[in-house]
Amino acid sequence: MTTLFEKIIAGDIPCHKVYEDDFVFAFLDIAPLSKGHTLVIPKEAVAYLHELSEDAAKALGKALVKVSAAVLEATGATAYNILQNNGAEAHQVVDHVHFHIIPKFGDEGLVIEWVPNELVDGESLACDIADRITF
Amino acid sequence: MTTLFEKIIAGDIPCHKVYEDDFVFAFLDIAPLSKGHTLVIPKEAVAYLHELSEDAAKALGKALVKVSAAVLEATGATAYNILQNNGAEAHQVVDHVHFHIIPKFGDEGLVIEWVPNELVDGESLACDIADRITF
Repeated sequence: MTTLFEKIIAGDIPCHKVYEDDFVFAFLDIAPLSKGHTLVIPKEAVAYLHELSEDAAKALGKALVKVSAAVLEATGATAYNILQNNGAEAHQVVDHVHFHIIPKFGDEGLVIEWVPNELVDGESLACDIADRITF
Repeated sequence: MTTLFEKIIAGDIPCHKVYEDDFVFAFLDIAPLSKGHTLVIPKEAVAYLHELSEDAAKALGKALVKVSAAVLEATGATAYNILQNNGAEAHQVVDHVHFHIIPKFGDEGLVIEWVPNELVDGESLACDIADRITF
Protein backbone atom coordinates (compact mmCIF):
# COMPACT_ATOMS: atom_id res chain seq x y z
CA MET A 1 0.00 0.00 0.00
CA THR A 2 1.35 3.38 -0.97
CA THR A 3 1.10 6.07 1.68
CA LEU A 4 1.09 9.84 1.37
CA PHE A 5 4.76 9.87 2.40
CA GLU A 6 5.93 7.72 -0.50
CA LYS A 7 4.26 10.20 -2.84
CA ILE A 8 6.01 13.07 -1.05
CA ILE A 9 9.41 11.33 -1.37
CA ALA A 10 8.73 10.69 -5.07
CA GLY A 11 7.84 14.36 -5.56
CA ASP A 12 4.27 13.56 -6.63
CA ILE A 13 2.91 15.57 -3.70
CA PRO A 14 4.65 18.87 -2.87
CA CYS A 15 6.26 19.48 0.52
CA HIS A 16 8.59 21.89 2.27
CA LYS A 17 11.71 19.74 2.07
CA VAL A 18 14.49 20.43 4.54
CA TYR A 19 16.85 17.44 4.10
CA GLU A 20 17.50 14.41 1.91
CA ASP A 21 20.15 11.70 1.63
CA ASP A 22 20.23 8.18 0.17
CA PHE A 23 18.11 6.71 2.96
CA VAL A 24 16.29 9.61 4.60
CA PHE A 25 13.92 12.44 3.67
CA ALA A 26 12.78 15.32 5.93
CA PHE A 27 10.12 17.99 5.50
CA LEU A 28 7.94 20.36 7.52
CA ASP A 29 4.84 18.84 9.14
CA ILE A 30 1.81 20.34 7.38
CA ALA A 31 -0.03 20.65 10.74
CA PRO A 32 2.79 21.81 13.05
CA LEU A 33 2.60 21.82 16.83
CA SER A 34 5.21 24.59 16.78
CA LYS A 35 7.40 26.58 14.43
CA GLY A 36 9.90 24.29 12.68
CA HIS A 37 8.00 21.05 13.44
CA THR A 38 9.72 18.63 11.06
CA LEU A 39 9.17 15.02 10.00
CA VAL A 40 12.21 12.80 9.41
CA ILE A 41 11.35 9.61 7.52
CA PRO A 42 13.19 6.67 5.96
CA LYS A 43 12.84 6.23 2.21
CA GLU A 44 12.26 2.56 2.97
CA ALA A 45 8.50 2.11 3.08
CA VAL A 46 7.72 0.29 6.32
CA ALA A 47 4.93 1.12 8.74
CA TYR A 48 6.65 0.51 12.10
CA LEU A 49 10.07 1.27 13.54
CA HIS A 50 10.81 -2.35 14.49
CA GLU A 51 10.48 -3.36 10.82
CA LEU A 52 13.22 -1.05 9.58
CA SER A 53 16.40 -2.46 7.95
CA GLU A 54 19.73 -1.93 9.72
CA ASP A 55 21.04 0.43 7.02
CA ALA A 56 17.93 2.61 7.17
CA ALA A 57 17.99 2.61 10.99
CA LYS A 58 21.58 3.82 11.13
CA ALA A 59 20.99 6.51 8.52
CA LEU A 60 17.88 7.65 10.36
CA GLY A 61 19.80 7.94 13.66
CA LYS A 62 22.45 10.05 11.97
CA ALA A 63 19.90 12.25 10.16
CA LEU A 64 17.86 12.86 13.33
CA VAL A 65 20.89 14.42 15.00
CA LYS A 66 21.78 16.48 11.94
CA VAL A 67 18.27 17.77 11.24
CA SER A 68 17.62 18.51 14.95
CA ALA A 69 20.70 20.73 15.06
CA ALA A 70 19.61 22.55 11.90
CA VAL A 71 16.03 23.06 13.15
CA LEU A 72 17.32 24.55 16.42
CA GLU A 73 19.64 26.85 14.52
CA ALA A 74 16.84 28.06 12.22
CA THR A 75 14.16 28.50 14.87
CA GLY A 76 16.21 29.64 17.85
CA ALA A 77 14.59 26.91 19.96
CA THR A 78 16.64 25.51 22.83
CA ALA A 79 14.26 22.71 23.87
CA TYR A 80 12.57 20.09 21.68
CA ASN A 81 10.93 16.67 21.66
CA ILE A 82 11.48 13.73 19.34
CA LEU A 83 8.39 11.55 18.95
CA GLN A 84 7.73 8.49 16.83
CA ASN A 85 4.39 6.67 17.06
CA ASN A 86 3.73 3.05 16.11
CA GLY A 87 0.16 1.80 15.66
CA ALA A 88 -3.17 3.65 15.61
CA GLU A 89 -3.55 3.04 19.35
CA ALA A 90 -0.31 5.00 19.85
CA HIS A 91 -1.51 7.94 17.68
CA GLN A 92 0.11 6.86 14.39
CA VAL A 93 -1.81 8.35 11.47
CA VAL A 94 0.33 7.64 8.37
CA ASP A 95 1.56 4.04 8.04
CA HIS A 96 5.14 4.94 7.13
CA VAL A 97 7.75 5.37 9.91
CA HIS A 98 8.15 9.05 10.80
CA PHE A 99 10.02 10.84 13.56
CA HIS A 100 8.65 14.21 14.66
CA ILE A 101 11.15 16.91 15.68
CA ILE A 102 9.01 19.34 17.70
CA PRO A 103 10.63 22.57 18.96
CA LYS A 104 9.27 23.66 22.34
CA PHE A 105 8.52 27.34 23.02
CA GLY A 106 6.71 27.76 26.34
CA ASP A 107 3.23 26.25 25.91
CA GLU A 108 3.76 25.76 22.19
CA GLY A 109 4.91 22.30 21.12
CA LEU A 110 4.28 18.79 22.39
CA VAL A 111 2.22 18.40 25.56
CA ILE A 112 2.72 15.15 27.42
CA GLU A 113 0.72 13.55 30.21
CA TRP A 114 3.12 11.48 32.29
CA VAL A 115 1.56 8.99 34.72
CA PRO A 116 4.44 6.85 36.02
CA ASN A 117 4.17 3.61 37.96
CA GLU A 118 6.62 1.84 40.21
CA LEU A 119 8.90 -0.88 38.90
CA VAL A 120 8.58 -3.58 41.53
CA ASP A 121 8.87 -7.33 41.74
CA GLY A 122 5.68 -9.37 41.81
CA GLU A 123 3.48 -6.58 40.46
CA SER A 124 1.87 -6.26 37.05
CA LEU A 125 4.76 -4.02 35.99
CA ALA A 126 7.31 -6.46 37.38
CA CYS A 127 10.93 -5.90 36.51
CA ASP A 128 11.26 -9.59 35.55
CA ILE A 129 10.16 -8.47 32.10
CA ALA A 130 13.83 -7.53 31.66
CA ASP A 131 14.73 -11.22 31.61
CA ARG A 132 12.16 -11.86 28.91
CA ILE A 133 13.50 -9.15 26.58
CA THR A 134 15.88 -11.29 24.53
CA PHE A 135 17.73 -11.01 21.21
CA MET B 1 29.04 16.58 35.26
CA THR B 2 28.29 12.92 35.86
CA THR B 3 24.65 11.95 35.62
CA LEU B 4 22.79 8.99 37.07
CA PHE B 5 22.95 7.28 33.67
CA GLU B 6 26.74 7.26 33.52
CA LYS B 7 26.76 5.52 36.87
CA ILE B 8 24.24 2.98 35.56
CA ILE B 9 26.38 2.30 32.45
CA ALA B 10 29.45 1.91 34.68
CA GLY B 11 27.57 -0.56 36.88
CA ASP B 12 27.87 1.67 39.96
CA ILE B 13 24.10 1.90 40.23
CA PRO B 14 22.09 -1.29 39.56
CA CYS B 15 19.51 -1.48 36.77
CA HIS B 16 17.44 -4.01 34.87
CA LYS B 17 19.63 -4.17 31.77
CA VAL B 18 18.06 -5.39 28.55
CA TYR B 19 20.71 -4.59 25.91
CA GLU B 20 24.29 -3.41 25.47
CA ASP B 21 26.74 -2.93 22.62
CA ASP B 22 29.87 -0.79 22.08
CA PHE B 23 27.91 2.45 21.81
CA VAL B 24 24.52 1.81 23.40
CA PHE B 25 23.03 0.68 26.71
CA ALA B 26 19.34 -0.11 27.43
CA PHE B 27 17.49 -0.81 30.67
CA LEU B 28 13.99 -0.68 32.15
CA ASP B 29 12.70 2.73 33.23
CA ILE B 30 12.43 2.68 37.02
CA ALA B 31 9.13 4.61 36.86
CA PRO B 32 7.43 2.97 33.86
CA LEU B 33 4.40 4.36 32.06
CA SER B 34 3.60 0.79 30.99
CA LYS B 35 4.95 -2.75 31.14
CA GLY B 36 8.28 -3.00 29.29
CA HIS B 37 8.96 0.77 29.30
CA THR B 38 12.65 0.84 28.33
CA LEU B 39 15.33 3.53 28.06
CA VAL B 40 17.85 3.32 25.22
CA ILE B 41 20.87 5.57 25.78
CA PRO B 42 24.23 6.24 24.12
CA LYS B 43 27.33 5.49 26.18
CA GLU B 44 28.60 8.86 24.96
CA ALA B 45 27.74 11.31 27.73
CA VAL B 46 25.99 14.24 26.05
CA ALA B 47 22.88 16.00 27.28
CA TYR B 48 21.03 16.64 24.01
CA LEU B 49 20.41 14.68 20.83
CA HIS B 50 21.87 17.33 18.53
CA GLU B 51 25.23 17.03 20.33
CA LEU B 52 25.68 13.32 19.59
CA SER B 53 28.60 12.07 17.45
CA GLU B 54 27.83 10.43 14.11
CA ASP B 55 29.00 6.99 15.27
CA ALA B 56 26.83 7.11 18.39
CA ALA B 57 23.84 8.39 16.38
CA LYS B 58 24.04 5.52 13.88
CA ALA B 59 24.44 2.92 16.63
CA LEU B 60 21.50 4.41 18.50
CA GLY B 61 19.27 4.25 15.41
CA LYS B 62 20.17 0.60 14.92
CA ALA B 63 19.66 -0.28 18.60
CA LEU B 64 16.28 1.48 18.78
CA VAL B 65 14.92 -0.81 16.08
CA LYS B 66 16.43 -3.92 17.67
CA VAL B 67 15.30 -3.18 21.23
CA SER B 68 11.80 -2.11 20.09
CA ALA B 69 11.33 -5.47 18.36
CA ALA B 70 12.50 -7.33 21.49
CA VAL B 71 10.26 -5.30 23.82
CA LEU B 72 7.21 -6.01 21.63
CA GLU B 73 8.07 -9.72 21.57
CA ALA B 74 8.44 -9.85 25.38
CA THR B 75 5.38 -7.79 26.27
CA GLY B 76 2.97 -8.78 23.52
CA ALA B 77 2.38 -5.09 22.78
CA THR B 78 1.46 -4.18 19.22
CA ALA B 79 1.55 -0.38 19.58
CA TYR B 80 4.26 1.80 21.13
CA ASN B 81 5.72 5.29 21.26
CA ILE B 82 9.33 6.41 21.01
CA LEU B 83 9.99 9.66 22.89
CA GLN B 84 13.18 11.61 23.45
CA ASN B 85 13.10 14.93 25.35
CA ASN B 86 15.69 17.71 25.11
CA GLY B 87 15.74 20.48 27.71
CA ALA B 88 13.86 20.89 31.00
CA GLU B 89 11.15 22.86 29.17
CA ALA B 90 10.55 19.75 27.03
CA HIS B 91 10.31 17.44 30.09
CA GLN B 92 13.94 16.24 30.13
CA VAL B 93 14.88 15.17 33.66
CA VAL B 94 18.30 13.46 33.33
CA ASP B 95 20.87 15.41 31.29
CA HIS B 96 22.08 12.43 29.27
CA VAL B 97 20.38 11.61 25.93
CA HIS B 98 17.73 8.90 26.41
CA PHE B 99 15.07 7.44 24.14
CA HIS B 100 11.97 6.02 25.80
CA ILE B 101 10.35 2.94 24.24
CA ILE B 102 6.84 2.98 25.72
CA PRO B 103 4.50 0.06 24.91
CA LYS B 104 0.84 1.14 24.61
CA PHE B 105 -1.92 -0.99 26.11
CA GLY B 106 -5.26 0.82 25.98
CA ASP B 107 -5.05 3.75 28.41
CA GLU B 108 -1.69 2.55 29.75
CA GLY B 109 1.38 4.18 28.21
CA LEU B 110 2.17 7.61 26.84
CA VAL B 111 -0.67 10.14 26.70
CA ILE B 112 -0.20 12.97 24.24
CA GLU B 113 -2.03 16.24 23.82
CA TRP B 114 -1.87 17.21 20.17
CA VAL B 115 -2.84 20.78 19.28
CA PRO B 116 -1.88 21.26 15.63
CA ASN B 117 -1.69 24.54 13.73
CA GLU B 118 -1.82 25.29 10.03
CA LEU B 119 1.34 25.64 7.97
CA VAL B 120 0.68 28.78 5.95
CA ASP B 121 2.67 31.56 4.34
CA GLY B 122 2.88 34.87 6.10
CA GLU B 123 1.80 33.52 9.47
CA SER B 124 3.86 32.98 12.60
CA LEU B 125 4.22 29.32 11.67
CA ALA B 126 5.20 30.24 8.12
CA CYS B 127 6.57 27.51 5.92
CA ASP B 128 9.44 29.79 4.88
CA ILE B 129 11.24 28.36 7.90
CA ALA B 130 12.08 25.46 5.56
CA ASP B 131 14.42 27.77 3.61
CA ARG B 132 16.19 28.73 6.81
CA ILE B 133 16.87 25.13 7.87
CA THR B 134 20.33 24.74 6.33
CA PHE B 135 23.30 22.37 6.68
